[in-house]
Amino acid sequence: MFTAPKLTAAEVAEKIGAQLEGDGSVVLDSVGDLEVATPNQLAVAGGEHYLKRVPQCHAGALIVPVGAPVPEPHPALLRAQDMESAFIDACALFAPPAPELAPGVHPTAVIGEGAELGEGVRIGAYAVVEAGAKVGAGTWLWPHSYVGYEATIGENCVLYPMASVRERCVVGNRVILHNGAVIGSDGFGYRVDRAGVRTKIPQTGIVELGDDVEIGANSTVDRARFGVTSIGKGCKIDNLVQIAHNCVLGDHTVLCAQVGLAGTTTLGSHVICAGQAGLAGHIKVGDWTVVGAQAGVTKDLPPAGMFLGSPAVPRMDFGRQMACINGIPKMRAALKEIAEKLQTMEAAANAFLAAQGEGDEAEK
Amino acid sequence: MFTAPKLTAAEVAEKIGAQLEGDGSVVLDSVGDLEVATPNQLAVAGGEHYLKRVPQCHAGALIVPVGAPVPEPHPALLRAQDMESAFIDACALFAPPAPELAPGVHPTAVIGEGAELGEGVRIGAYAVVEAGAKVGAGTWLWPHSYVGYEATIGENCVLYPMASVRERCVVGNRVILHNGAVIGSDGFGYRVDRAGVRTKIPQTGIVELGDDVEIGANSTVDRARFGVTSIGKGCKIDNLVQIAHNCVLGDHTVLCAQVGLAGTTTLGSHVICAGQAGLAGHIKVGDWTVVGAQAGVTKDLPPAGMFLGSPAVPRMDFGRQMACINGIPKMRAALKEIAEKLQTMEAAANAFLAAQGEGDEAEK
Amino acid sequence: MFTAPKLTAAEVAEKIGAQLEGDGSVVLDSVGDLEVATPNQLAVAGGEHYLKRVPQCHAGALIVPVGAPVPEPHPALLRAQDMESAFIDACALFAPPAPELAPGVHPTAVIGEGAELGEGVRIGAYAVVEAGAKVGAGTWLWPHSYVGYEATIGENCVLYPMASVRERCVVGNRVILHNGAVIGSDGFGYRVDRAGVRTKIPQTGIVELGDDVEIGANSTVDRARFGVTSIGKGCKIDNLVQIAHNCVLGDHTVLCAQVGLAGTTTLGSHVICAGQAGLAGHIKVGDWTVVGAQAGVTKDLPPAGMFLGSPAVPRMDFGRQMACINGIPKMRAALKEIAEKLQTMEAAANAFLAAQGEGDEAEK
Repeated sequence: MFTAPKLTAAEVAEKIGAQLEGDGSVVLDSVGDLEVATPNQLAVAGGEHYLKRVPQCHAGALIVPVGAPVPEPHPALLRAQDMESAFIDACALFAPPAPELAPGVHPTAVIGEGAELGEGVRIGAYAVVEAGAKVGAGTWLWPHSYVGYEATIGENCVLYPMASVRERCVVGNRVILHNGAVIGSDGFGYRVDRAGVRTKIPQTGIVELGDDVEIGANSTVDRARFGVTSIGKGCKIDNLVQIAHNCVLGDHTVLCAQVGLAGTTTLGSHVICAGQAGLAGHIKVGDWTVVGAQAGVTKDLPPAGMFLGSPAVPRMDFGRQMACINGIPKMRAALKEIAEKLQTMEAAANAFLAAQGEGDEAEK
Repeated sequence: MFTAPKLTAAEVAEKIGAQLEGDGSVVLDSVGDLEVATPNQLAVAGGEHYLKRVPQCHAGALIVPVGAPVPEPHPALLRAQDMESAFIDACALFAPPAPELAPGVHPTAVIGEGAELGEGVRIGAYAVVEAGAKVGAGTWLWPHSYVGYEATIGENCVLYPMASVRERCVVGNRVILHNGAVIGSDGFGYRVDRAGVRTKIPQTGIVELGDDVEIGANSTVDRARFGVTSIGKGCKIDNLVQIAHNCVLGDHTVLCAQVGLAGTTTLGSHVICAGQAGLAGHIKVGDWTVVGAQAGVTKDLPPAGMFLGSPAVPRMDFGRQMACINGIPKMRAALKEIAEKLQTMEAAANAFLAAQGEGDEAEK
Repeated sequence: MFTAPKLTAAEVAEKIGAQLEGDGSVVLDSVGDLEVATPNQLAVAGGEHYLKRVPQCHAGALIVPVGAPVPEPHPALLRAQDMESAFIDACALFAPPAPELAPGVHPTAVIGEGAELGEGVRIGAYAVVEAGAKVGAGTWLWPHSYVGYEATIGENCVLYPMASVRERCVVGNRVILHNGAVIGSDGFGYRVDRAGVRTKIPQTGIVELGDDVEIGANSTVDRARFGVTSIGKGCKIDNLVQIAHNCVLGDHTVLCAQVGLAGTTTLGSHVICAGQAGLAGHIKVGDWTVVGAQAGVTKDLPPAGMFLGSPAVPRMDFGRQMACINGIPKMRAALKEIAEKLQTMEAAANAFLAAQGEGDEAEK
């Protein structure tokens, strides 16, 4: 069982390239959140918001930015130029090593006829690699993963338990598929006749995942009706995401958890869709655009914009819509006041005219 | 590895029953989208929108409707009465054959005591069929699929890798379950005591899937609390859909990706729920009704309607709501203008009355 | 194959502790819904809404509350103090027994080096328990389940087919993981450089599930970036739910189907999130608060409240917003009427002033 190493603050500072300030002899064995960290833990205090809480914290040592004033009292400080890097490196110092799949091919793995396994491929218990498939050098297939007929998996990939890639799909290098991810399920395609009865349209295409793509647990990427459902290099797809047939994602695009793209929709590169957003089919989203959480995108979106709401509108407009809706009670009150004032003026005018009429009568 | 056949446009026309127009000798080996197709590819140009782009395309040949004028220049044309059929047939011509599961029962498949396998059943590596289950003739169980105790699977079904059917559930004929689909998980049912602590209510019912049902990747259909969670004939369920315990779906109903139905909700036949729609529990939706993407249905819906928004309202009302919200800034401006005009009129009236008063005084 | 027992209403009454009223000799073999139950079935009629429909029902016997007037005609009655208990017990009487996993460890199960299996553990075909893992007494691992390196599973747990727990995660006692549930997938964490290219941040933490937690089919709980993604005792998580890295759930909290929590969000105890709700990251929700279906929570929520909409607001405010939006057409009509009236008054005033002017002229 893993036991975390014990390192002094001074040792940690040296390993992560931070400048030690204060007593570096305190012994640390883990990382903790600033608010709850204990004296055996290293925490982080980056911005103003966190730095002002330092006097209340109990961490044994803190990673802080170079040059930032730190209120007393504070523990030993590890001053870092790049806070994010420093923290990542610190976590790694105390983290257990990632588990290793045993080298080689487990005796229970089923490798189909003509399947090619590259050098250093590791295959776990009960993994299945169908006939004609190719698995690139250095790739790890964890127990219960599945690689379909004539599918191609690149080098240094990881398929976690229950991840599956169906026939003829092409997976690039250094791709990670998490538990239960499905690559190449049939697209949702049917003919419908006049009686409303549906007949399945064969989905004859494939999925292609570019290098460095990561697909989260239980996410699903459907094969194309014809051609390719294509995910560009470096895309990061979170859990429980749906990517329908014939979608195309540019490089370095990010889909957060439970996002859904309908068929034949194209996202540019560096697009970000926040959690639970939904995009209609046959639309295009420009590069660098951000789609907000739970947004519902029904039309093409230009590049470098931010869109919220359902139906999705530019962020400024969404803000105005919200302000408008929130301002309706005031408008209703103003309307009521105006109606009453109008009534008063009408009555006064009528009274005046009536008096005028009597006056005229009197004068006659 | 599959190599697509090379066919001339003339050969393709003959095979798909289309009328050739122009030089049928061009060699084709795949299907492509009109906008990006290359001279070795066959594309489709159906409506006006697409036909006008024909002069810019580079496809080797085009499927077009009988009688439609096609602007020059254009490649060889394959005139089709039924465009959809023609395209499906063309895709099939160039598609690789679907992968075959090896006939018979893989030596690693575990078949429980008293399980019955019909004629021509094919079972892949590591599939598990529990005791007392029945698998109908011609059904294919792909590697890593699971059929639970005393479950019944009909004829000519397909269970893809990681698909699972739990105990006593009944699956009809020609049903397709995609990777990771779960049939028969427990419904979400608990008693809650005064302290807010929940105790599980046994979910003693089953799921029944009618003939020709298709369930997408990682979708989940819960067994009933008692009785049956029932999916009618020909229903098509996309990926990552949730169907809760005791739901009933009529025939030929369609649930798009990431739709969620809460418990004991009944959909009629030919209902369509678009992506990410959510339906509350214990409600009824009439036949032929369409529920829009991301809609939130909280009440019974009549048949043959279309409902959008959350809470869902008839489409016309949703349009009005949107128009209203978008029209609020104008209303606010109009209100401001009225308030100002009223103020002006009030001031004028007061000035007039004051002048009148002085006049009267003067006259006295 | 299971055959339901045949019991008389009198026998059922005795077994479930209900008071028989009427002819207890009718033979029952199942439970049915009041509206569709047949004479061989037992149904339930609790509140007023159901009791008034009794004369139209065809059930062989009914469970009704003690003291409630039941309209004639009605079948044999089983009067119960605790309706919910009575119904649960009745369902159980007629339900088939839950399937048993064969005792012991299936010969095909792969048990890693140093893995510890407690007394009475049952492990099904093709289940995998990695080296150093611990499985507590009485736990059942169904076929195709997976327990990762050095993971700890408590006593009397159930892992259904395709459920997986990754390395070093800690699962408490009496935890149930449904088909395809994933515990310990990597959190969604990346550094992003100036060119918009993302690099994976190692997710070195774990997941901890408290005693009596139940996780639905295909739900995903990500391991922490560092530290623990923590689910408190008695939490009930439905299907297709996403819980991101470093989330913390208090005891007895409930997440309905397709809910999504973004990273480092903390829910108190006894919180309920209804279906498809989404919660942003780094927020806190107080104890006993209810988040409505499809709500979008973007800020901290206080305890014991109810919040609806996206962005989520207190229920009263959501009601007002809806009323406001629905009231806009009336406001628009009122505004139009006021504008017209104002115009009329303006015209009348001008006419009056003009007449006055002429009169004055005349008088001079």
